[in-house]
Amino acid sequence: MRYISSRSNEKIKQLVKLSASSKQRREQGLFVLEGARLCFDGAISDAEIESAFFTGEALEKYKEYTNTIAERAENCYEISKEVSAALSDTKSPQGVFCLCKKKEHSASEIDYNGCYIALDNLQDPSNLGAAARTAEALGIDGLIVSGGCDIYSPKAQRAAMGALIRINVTEISSLPEFLIECRSRGMKTYASTPAADSVKIDEADFSGGVICVIGNEGAGVSEEVFAACENKVTIPMAGRAESLNASAAASIIMWELAKRRRG
Amino acid sequence: MRYISSRSNEKIKQLVKLSASSKQRREQGLFVLEGARLCFDGAISDAEIESAFFTGEALEKYKEYTNTIAERAENCYEISKEVSAALSDTKSPQGVFCLCKKKEHSASEIDYNGCYIALDNLQDPSNLGAAARTAEALGIDGLIVSGGCDIYSPKAQRAAMGALIRINVTEISSLPEFLIECRSRGMKTYASTPAADSVKIDEADFSGGVICVIGNEGAGVSEEVFAACENKVTIPMAGRAESLNASAAASIIMWELAKRRRG
Repeated sequence: MRYISSRSNEKIKQLVKLSASSKQRREQGLFVLEGARLCFDGAISDAEIESAFFTGEALEKYKEYTNTIAERAENCYEISKEVSAALSDTKSPQGVFCLCKKKEHSASEIDYNGCYIALDNLQDPSNLGAAARTAEALGIDGLIVSGGCDIYSPKAQRAAMGALIRINVTEISSLPEFLIECRSRGMKTYASTPAADSVKIDEADFSGGVICVIGNEGAGVSEEVFAACENKVTIPMAGRAESLNASAAASIIMWELAKRRRG
Repeated sequence: MRYISSRSNEKIKQLVKLSASSKQRREQGLFVLEGARLCFDGAISDAEIESAFFTGEALEKYKEYTNTIAERAENCYEISKEVSAALSDTKSPQGVFCLCKKKEHSASEIDYNGCYIALDNLQDPSNLGAAARTAEALGIDGLIVSGGCDIYSPKAQRAAMGALIRINVTEISSLPEFLIECRSRGMKTYASTPAADSVKIDEADFSGGVICVIGNEGAGVSEEVFAACENKVTIPMAGRAESLNASAAASIIMWELAKRRRG
């Protein structure tokens, strides 16, 4: 295993850039995972690991994880503590990092009989990660991500605890166009809204292919997306509507959507 | 309005201590709110404001909020930017702070025909705040908080966006004892768990008085609490159970609990 002691090493400089910039991730088709468990989850979920980086301490402490990661990585490097600190997005780094190739899912992979959640311009990577975890737990067929924060950002990946690697996530550039295409294929399209004159989420028809859009934290679902959806659904509330945040709304919507799987 | 320019002022030192320490908050029966909107929400929700603090800039910029806050506060102070920075829990302080008296709700105020969520040793103040917001939005009668993070911490109050002031929150020292008391009063008691051999959350009997316990982020509901509850409920999952985090689980449980309100 080659040893990298300096943060001015070219490989390390590349990783720092990739962690900081979604533009770099897009251009290079690469992203960085951090943390023993998250990198292990990536490895066993068939993430393509271009390079893995471990501190000497991590190779001891997280042996059961790092062995598996090292087996699946194309290249492995031991790094100094100083390099680990430079790479890390956290205050107490575990000293385990993977440089991974992005796995692009195209819209043509959508199962038109499946159930999907679309996230319209979600801003907070923690909310994105949490939504991916919930989608996985409840058995949603996939996430459609349009605009907003980057699914490959370190914060989103950390919050997702591997779910963003394991589940089917499709990035699309125009959500309205995508929704119109889904409708033409016979899918039911729902936009979620606090507006009380909408179909109640637990009374909506979620049989067959369904895609339900969750709006962004501040502005909700955009007008263009509303126009492209056939139906509007709402979560009936007793108290102050503004109190239900994007994450809570997403959990409840996915729960009602997932019930059809059991029903 | 008296002007405080120095962070070594006794009043300011008291506020800094109260923001940092739950022990201080407990001993003094006081806590600090920060932010124009949150302090305004406190004022119109009848929080007892012992003192309000504003920077000159905030008095201009947030006039509509600060006027109301100042009307309801026993004392008002103008503070320098330096003092505001010392008091603040955020990077870009708005310059609005309130020193409030804690409003203690006792267990005897519980409505034995109502529906309640109990949080068993929740660790993350953001999760606590989010649970309070969801409880308010969905019309849950109140939160029971036992152990874990402090409801009066700046982080919890910020995440709750005023919900922790507006809704009924009861802090209790022994959740098992409380649950046994509730059972003796005819309430149904449920502990939530990932264990699949439990009653499914959407098939549970939530008529009459109900209290449902949500466990902490790492360990779930404690053994003592399980023993004190009559029933166990679970959220049926299709995927990896570990993927449903405490906040998502809490949202789904409250949603199913709140449905009885709509009949």
